[in-house]
Order: sequence, then C-alpha cells, then structure tokens
Amino acid sequence: MAAVIICSVNKTAQAAARRCLGPHLKELGGVAESHLPFTCSPSVPKWFSRGSGVRFMSHGTAGRSAAGRTRRGILALSGAAAAAAAAVAGFLANANHFQRAEMATRVSQDVKAKKQEGDILERCQGFMSHPVTDVSVLQQRRGEMRTKMEMLIMETQAEFCKALEKVDGGTFKVDRWDRSEGGGGISCVMQDGNVFEKAGVNVSVVFGNLTEEAARQMTSRGKVLKGKDGKLPFCAMGVSSVIHPKNPHIPTVHFNYRYFEVEEEDGTKQWWFGGGTDLTPVYINKEDAFHFHNTLKEACDKHHPQYYPDFKKWCDRYFYVRHRGETRGIGGIFFDDLDSPSQEEVFNFVKSCARTVVPCYLPIVYKHLNDSFTDGEKDWQQVRRGRYVEFNLVYDRGVKFGLATPGSRIESILMSLPLTARWEYMHEPAKGTKEAEMLEVLKNPKEWV
Amino acid sequence: MAAVIICSVNKTAQAAARRCLGPHLKELGGVAESHLPFTCSPSVPKWFSRGSGVRFMSHGTAGRSAAGRTRRGILALSGAAAAAAAAVAGFLANANHFQRAEMATRVSQDVKAKKQEGDILERCQGFMSHPVTDVSVLQQRRGEMRTKMEMLIMETQAEFCKALEKVDGGTFKVDRWDRSEGGGGISCVMQDGNVFEKAGVNVSVVFGNLTEEAARQMTSRGKVLKGKDGKLPFCAMGVSSVIHPKNPHIPTVHFNYRYFEVEEEDGTKQWWFGGGTDLTPVYINKEDAFHFHNTLKEACDKHHPQYYPDFKKWCDRYFYVRHRGETRGIGGIFFDDLDSPSQEEVFNFVKSCARTVVPCYLPIVYKHLNDSFTDGEKDWQQVRRGRYVEFNLVYDRGVKFGLATPGSRIESILMSLPLTARWEYMHEPAKGTKEAEMLEVLKNPKEWV
Repeated sequence: MAAVIICSVNKTAQAAARRCLGPHLKELGGVAESHLPFTCSPSVPKWFSRGSGVRFMSHGTAGRSAAGRTRRGILALSGAAAAAAAAVAGFLANANHFQRAEMATRVSQDVKAKKQEGDILERCQGFMSHPVTDVSVLQQRRGEMRTKMEMLIMETQAEFCKALEKVDGGTFKVDRWDRSEGGGGISCVMQDGNVFEKAGVNVSVVFGNLTEEAARQMTSRGKVLKGKDGKLPFCAMGVSSVIHPKNPHIPTVHFNYRYFEVEEEDGTKQWWFGGGTDLTPVYINKEDAFHFHNTLKEACDKHHPQYYPDFKKWCDRYFYVRHRGETRGIGGIFFDDLDSPSQEEVFNFVKSCARTVVPCYLPIVYKHLNDSFTDGEKDWQQVRRGRYVEFNLVYDRGVKFGLATPGSRIESILMSLPLTARWEYMHEPAKGTKEAEMLEVLKNPKEWV
Repeated sequence: MAAVIICSVNKTAQAAARRCLGPHLKELGGVAESHLPFTCSPSVPKWFSRGSGVRFMSHGTAGRSAAGRTRRGILALSGAAAAAAAAVAGFLANANHFQRAEMATRVSQDVKAKKQEGDILERCQGFMSHPVTDVSVLQQRRGEMRTKMEMLIMETQAEFCKALEKVDGGTFKVDRWDRSEGGGGISCVMQDGNVFEKAGVNVSVVFGNLTEEAARQMTSRGKVLKGKDGKLPFCAMGVSSVIHPKNPHIPTVHFNYRYFEVEEEDGTKQWWFGGGTDLTPVYINKEDAFHFHNTLKEACDKHHPQYYPDFKKWCDRYFYVRHRGETRGIGGIFFDDLDSPSQEEVFNFVKSCARTVVPCYLPIVYKHLNDSFTDGEKDWQQVRRGRYVEFNLVYDRGVKFGLATPGSRIESILMSLPLTARWEYMHEPAKGTKEAEMLEVLKNPKEWV
C-alpha cells in the first residue's frame, strides 16, 4: 500500500484550544506528560499517514501508540505543557517539519516497544489489581488478541483512575469479582470524593457459552452466529467508565472499549471491537466541546479519515433519549461491530481511542475545578442527571443486556448511574438562559470541530 | 344464582388496626367520613354476599358502592372515626346482625343513587378540571361504560387530590393536555410540598386507532385482536398516581385503574379492566402493612373471595425488580385483562378498589406525619427511590408502552419518578438494622393479612 499523507492545518482551532485549555494542561503533570514523550511546535501541520513506509499509526504496537501520543500533543496539548514536554525532549524543541517528528517517533517506537511488548508481569505492576486472567496464562498467550486487549483495558483503567485520584485527592475502592460461569472483573469506584460525586472505572473479562439469541443481541447489526448445538463459546472483555463530578461546570464523561470473540460451529472465530467516548456537560462550553471532539478526531484521523465523521454521527444517534427528543450529551464517538480491515488495525485504533481518554477529559476537569456555582446550577445538573438515568435504563444496549443476563454483576453495570438525580415535573428552562442554550444543543446536535 | 354468604371474624386483626391507626383516622375528617355514611359496631361479622336477593355488592351502582363503604369501615375504620360516623347514623350504632346492615344499605342505595346516577354536570363540579370528554357527550352516553368509567376516574382523582391537599397544605397544579390523535388528560402534580416531595395524580382518556401489534402489547396476555386493514379503533382511559412523601417513615403509594375498549374487524367490542394499588415503604411497619392490605382485601372480598389472594400474588410478581432480586415494595393488589363475569361486575369491583385508595393510604400518612428522622434514614429513602426508578424505567409495562408510543405525554408518564433519588455503589445494610429488615421483606414477600 502506498503512503497516503493527508495534511490539514487549522490554526484557528489550535489557537482556540491553546487559549482555553493551555493553562490547565500543566496540572496534568505526570499524566499528560506521559502522553507526550516528544512534542512539536504548534506550526507543525496536522498530518495523517497510511502508507507502509511512514505508517506511524499502523506499523507495530509501540510505534503506533507513541506516534499517536505525539500527534495528540500537537493540537490538544500546548502552552505550558508543551513547553515542559519540549524540555524533556529538547532536541525536538524547534522541529517544524514532519520528517523530524517521524524520526523521533521511530526512536520512541523502540523505547516503547521494549516496555509495552516487554514483560507482562512488569506491566501488571501498574494496574489497579492483577488482571482477571492469570498472569502465567497471559504470558503463554502473549501473541493473542485477547491478551493484548486485556492488557490494554487494564492499562486504561489504571491510567484513568490514577489521573482522577490525582485531581480529586481521593482513592478508588477496588473490587475484584468472579463470574461463576467464567471470568470476572475489577470495579474501581470513588464515591462522594472532593471533585467527583461518583466515578466508576470497570474492567470485565468474561467467557463461557452463549446462546445464539444472546450472541445476536451482542452485535448491533444482529449478526447471526451458528453454534454447536446452539451453543457458542465466547470471550468478551472491556473497560468502561462513567464519571459524574460534583461541580455542574465539569461535565460527565463516559467511555467504553470492548472486544468480542465467538467461536462458530465450524471452528471459525468471529471477532469484533466496539467502543466510544462521549461527553455530557450540564452547560455548554464551546472551547471544551472543541477540545474534546478535536482530541477524538485526532485519534481517529490517524486510522481512517472517515472514522471521526462516521463515529461522531453514530454517537449522536446512539446516545439519543428518544422520548425526550434530545441527545444525552454533546457526543463524541461511538462504534460497534468493527471487524475490518484487520484485527491488528482495529486493535490499534481502539488503543489510540483508549489512550485519548485522559487528554480528552482531564484538561476540562482542571479548567473548571474551582468554578463557583449557584443552587440553581446544581439543580439543573441534577435534572440532567435524571435524563442520564433515563437513557441508561431505557435505551443503553449494554445495560439492558447486562440486566437481562443471569450472573451479571449488577453493581458494576449500574455504577454508571449518578449518586443523585432529580425529576422535576414539566421542567422547562426560560428562553435565553444558559439552560435553554444547553437544551437547544441537545435537540440539534452540532459539529464541534 | 343462589345467595352465597361467607363469614369470617378476625377480631385480633381488627384490634390491631384500631390500636395502630385509630387515632389517625379522625384526621381524615370529611374524607374518611364521606366513606362512612353508616357504620356498625366492631362485633358485626365480616360477610360477603353474591346472591341475587342479598347481593349488596353487585346490585346497582349506588348500592354496591355504598355497601362497599360501609363494610370497609367495619374493619379498617374504627375508634374515633367509627364513633363519629355512628353519631351521624345513630340508628345503626347498636346494630349487630347483618339484616340491619342490609336495610341500612338499601336506604343508602336510594340516597346515593340519586347523587351518583344523577346529573353528570353536577358531579363534574367537584372535579379537578372538567372531564376530557365534553359534558354534553357524557350526558348523551350516560349509560355507556366509557362514560361511567370516565366519571369514576375523574372522581377518584378529585377525591385523592383533595385528601392530599388537606394533609399537605399545598395545592395541586392542574394541567389539561390534548392528544393530537384523539383524547387527552388532566395531570395534577404537587411538587416540593410540605408533606409530599412529589405527588402526581393523572387522568387520561385517549382514543383513535391502534395497530394490531400495539393492541397486543396493551394486554398482559398478549391477546391477539383482528382489526379492519390492521387498524383497531380503541378507547383507553385510566387514573394513575404515585405519591412520594418527604418523610422516610411515610411510604410511597401507587395506584392505577384503567379501562380499554377495542373494536375488532367484525364490529365486536373487546373490553377489559386493569389496575391495582401498592405500597412502597422505606421502613417496615407491620401495622401499616396490615392496614393497607386488609383494606384492599375488604374491597376485594366484596366481589370475589379469590380476588385478594390472586391479585396480591400478581402484585408481588409484577412489581419485581428482577436484576435486584427484590420487589419494589410490599405490594397490594394488581390485575389486568379482567373481562369477566360481566362488564358491570368488573366495573363495580374497580369502583370499590378506586374508592379504597384514600382509606388505604391517608391514615398511614397522618400516623407518621410528625415522625422524626435522621440523615441516615433519609439516605436510605433516597436509595430506595433509586430502586423505584429502576423498576419504573426498566420493567413497568405502562411506562415502556408510553415511552414507545408516539404522541404520548412524557411528563405525565414520568411524573411517577421521584423528585430525587440516589444510587450508592454496593449499598448493603448491616445485619440487624431496620434497613436490612426492609430488604429481607422485599426479597421474601410476606402475607400481611
């Protein structure tokens, strides 16, 4: 495949992101900087490569992720954080064309490869708990996708929990649970913290046999799968999280990345990935919305130029509270049943998305950490939380599937519900208010990037 | 049909109800007493007649309801209230055999008949709003079941709202709404009152055409109905209410009584009634539970000895939060698709049930009006409210049907949700606490009568 380079420079967008989020990026400290092994000056164009020669994003696990991190930094991370990161990677401080970035990325690939493809046991040390699957089994199956994905979801959980603990000052309660039918999970929940009313980050790795009907329900396309005597050996794993902050000026975030494997009657393995990250603010803040969507777009664009526009639309369609005629929030990306072009390529896309969670959300948290708010603003947050509950209990496919599946761990499924919510009869914000502005956006989803 | 008389005297039960609720019945004032045109001494046996000669309960609208009121009074209303009522109906103060009660009931029938079968316009004056159907149409169709039922649901709404306003001191907001496809409703909501956090009492009368699929969904048996070109002219009406008090020692109550008519291809009219009343306490109070269930049992027993036991079980089965393995509350009665022995008989049963709402619930409200409570008790109430939301959004057939039906009035459907609710991760009451006792009852439904 020939190298395809897509260039686009959006200086206005970069400047907006810098103006808005720059001062707050420094707060991320170790978290954001760990995503920034190298950085470039803001004048470096936004590019995208899909060729075999310069396929930064799809050529080896470490390479892709390292490049992803660099490029995420270009637009989303700037100002003070960029300066700090540049000091770390001094030789790149004045780089202004992509060849240097490429060189740097390759160096980074080698370093990262050693760590990421390295000793599984060592990587496990940073997790919130030891993985669901026995470490010796993971080491034996190190080349298999289920191992790669389990390591990714464990890493994503740990990275996100640590970033949240840092900003909150509180500690996650870590619960390991077993599923009698096979597998289990690790639920991390922080409740009534300083910043977060309720924060849940859940990993689950389950396996066993599915009925054909259950397997069909697990795919959004209703894919028909044929099992031996109606039974399908399956393995499903994922990381999912919902964070409900206390301050109504800090939005709620949700993400979920998941992988399925099902073995059909003839021994064929069907696999697919799904996932997404979306934001639910209580009040519209255009700069936050731009930052959030643009960071996701950057991650998507590395893999396919249609991913962001398609998955953004899918997200708006999926997180739709039909009976209210409004979306749950301002969206982000959502995809399901992704099984092409190859397992490795889709995994790398999912990895880019998972690694985008912290830089998507944490700068927004830091930015609004000390925003003051009124009782009225808190009430409106609570009303919006009520709508969040409505979506999750009435429409969310994962919740519905979980509640209907015997042996599910209900507390982990419903940890997505806020600590508190409110339903006011006939709540209608007055025209011209910030509340009405929010509602208008929910009724007519916008393009943010 | 020969007269069948069933006698049963449960003096212990009567004494318990008296001890517990007697002092609070006087608070009902006009409300409870209006249900007690005549009363008997507590020694009068509990009897039940289904013969044509002494069919107090199934011989003319007025007769049945008047008798129903009397008999409800025998067991459920006693003490101060009984004395007051006896003074009004002095000649019955010493009655101790059913012949006298019979005579009294017949006198009462005549009086009531005049009022109840009387001028529709006059009866409408006590309603929260004029009926959904034009009064002149109701007068023209005075003999039809849809008119009788619309008058009953309007009366039930008014009676209950007035009783709640009296105890709360607040006022219901009355909203009339039209359904573009045909019909409309009257929603009465009191929010953030003195006693009630949220109280909603809704009447709806809707008609038009149903698809066969929608018609099937409207019956719990999934009855197959054949329409002309797939369309079924229908008329559906009901009164429904959910009351969430502020004080955790006052339980939440719900009731709903509804009537359906569907015209099939060949012009046959299918009709059925459904309904029920159930209680959701935050803490178990055995006397309240007895009073509530016993009052319902009394109403049921007047019509069929199997109604209470069958509909009590149905209620426990229906209000079951499957994913939690617990019932929503301590139940009551629930029935659906009731279409025998005759339209008139079922209507009279439904009328007895509807007239039982105030005497079921209000004595409990008055009893706990000034109970003090702790922050911990309030928190537990909020957690239980969360479970209430889970049931209503995940399982309730009415809510699901309403949310999925275009043109539904969402605010009226979701007025059943509490003003506030709470979801705590892994909330598990410690052994031996009052909270654990409540949970135990929800996991293992009890017989209260």
